[in-house]
Amino acid sequence: MIPETKTQESCLRIFGLRSRLIRKDDDICKALEDAFSENGISPQEGDIIVIAESALATAEGNIIPLADIVPSDSAINLAADCRLDPREAELIIREADYIFGGVSGAILTIKNGLLCPNAGIDNSNAPEGYVTLYPADPTKSAVRIRKAVSEKYGCNVGIIVADSRTQPLRLGCTGVALGAAGFLAVEDKRGEEDLYGRKMTITRIAVADNLATAAEIVMGETNASIPFALIRDSGIRMIPEESGIELIPTDQCLYFGSFRKGFRTSRERVKSII
Amino acid sequence: MIPETKTQESCLRIFGLRSRLIRKDDDICKALEDAFSENGISPQEGDIIVIAESALATAEGNIIPLADIVPSDSAINLAADCRLDPREAELIIREADYIFGGVSGAILTIKNGLLCPNAGIDNSNAPEGYVTLYPADPTKSAVRIRKAVSEKYGCNVGIIVADSRTQPLRLGCTGVALGAAGFLAVEDKRGEEDLYGRKMTITRIAVADNLATAAEIVMGETNASIPFALIRDSGIRMIPEESGIELIPTDQCLYFGSFRKGFRTSRERVKSII
Repeated sequence: MIPETKTQESCLRIFGLRSRLIRKDDDICKALEDAFSENGISPQEGDIIVIAESALATAEGNIIPLADIVPSDSAINLAADCRLDPREAELIIREADYIFGGVSGAILTIKNGLLCPNAGIDNSNAPEGYVTLYPADPTKSAVRIRKAVSEKYGCNVGIIVADSRTQPLRLGCTGVALGAAGFLAVEDKRGEEDLYGRKMTITRIAVADNLATAAEIVMGETNASIPFALIRDSGIRMIPEESGIELIPTDQCLYFGSFRKGFRTSRERVKSII
Repeated sequence: MIPETKTQESCLRIFGLRSRLIRKDDDICKALEDAFSENGISPQEGDIIVIAESALATAEGNIIPLADIVPSDSAINLAADCRLDPREAELIIREADYIFGGVSGAILTIKNGLLCPNAGIDNSNAPEGYVTLYPADPTKSAVRIRKAVSEKYGCNVGIIVADSRTQPLRLGCTGVALGAAGFLAVEDKRGEEDLYGRKMTITRIAVADNLATAAEIVMGETNASIPFALIRDSGIRMIPEESGIELIPTDQCLYFGSFRKGFRTSRERVKSII
């Protein structure tokens, strides 16, 4: 039997870190440092620090006044389709790598390999009349912040730049990692054995997304003023080199692979709703 | 400044609970009780207990010997398409509410409102020659287990029956709640104010999925023998009534709503890859 104290010590812990409001051109590393100090916690070896993308984007100056944006005809049509501000639709067209279509209030896009609403453009938690764009290069920022934190506190930490988004046919947002540094963002379990000694064939773990989602529980979405979280004793694999987040090719993705076939040949499938 | 001890106490904590191997017709409540005891931890008011669906399904006898299954012609074709065992494909056809299509090794389905691979049928962590189906009614089981745990330990707890699945265009699995009891599974933040005092319009939080995903960090996927996790001090809203998990209608789902339009009219969209 494992004594209670042992278990208590070895559990995973997540600390939400309150912060002053982060403004354009703030130093995100300084804001994080102040948050550690104000919350009475210091990073330790192996800690993972999760940073809300909106806070990072704001500090990096990636906020845009809508008044400066002149919407194109395409943007006006797209905005009418999806009940968005035409200037926001214009920014979505500029920022998105791909646009699939939308529902009321949101357009489904790909931005830097990530399937996300509105190309990451958000008018929540931005000053009146402004929207935040996604940070320009979240993994590059994660690498920079990791270096600063590791040097300042003398320990290796991992950094995640996190956003939240909905999942298909689910109500409500979960976390997603836009950028990562210092740990293995996707863990490959293929070849490991299951409970009955059989080799696993397709299992990988989305470690960075799981940590981003866990942090979301304490970070909140509205006026909670908790743009940072610290995850301790997660047991994940730290790596010294820049990790980034490995992506899956479209044709190997279960959803894209299946929807392509399913949408085209639905009547020939065994069962289908589309 | 908040003293460190205060912060340490108020953080969210997740305990992975090792367990003996759970077999067909085991009492899941007894197995859970034994795991609490063996891991030296007792449930407290407001704790959330996460149970791996494969463990629950096994205990509830929802495991099937493949030798008994005779595949239909449809199943044989589907299996050839997706490189699956034809008997497994036959079970997927029987279990799925809808089938969209598939990629190598997996078929995208809807089962009880959940978009999931292979209708929840899994040959990992099942005895040789067997597969596990999803538990018949995960929320009903969650309600039953919640009642048993709450009575035994004299405190209100929440229960989640959890699985893992991949996300669109992401590599690796994250958690998803198949069933829930005792807490608000989806929290509605609409009407709350953001950092700048503006009302949020579309934000909901997938609390149950977030907790299921956080638990996955400590539960593992392979031979870890950790079918249970206990989440403490999550700050989520407990509710006495049966909660279940609210779902989103297909036409309001960002992905389904957008893909339908996008796949049909891709050349007319502003940008599209499909």
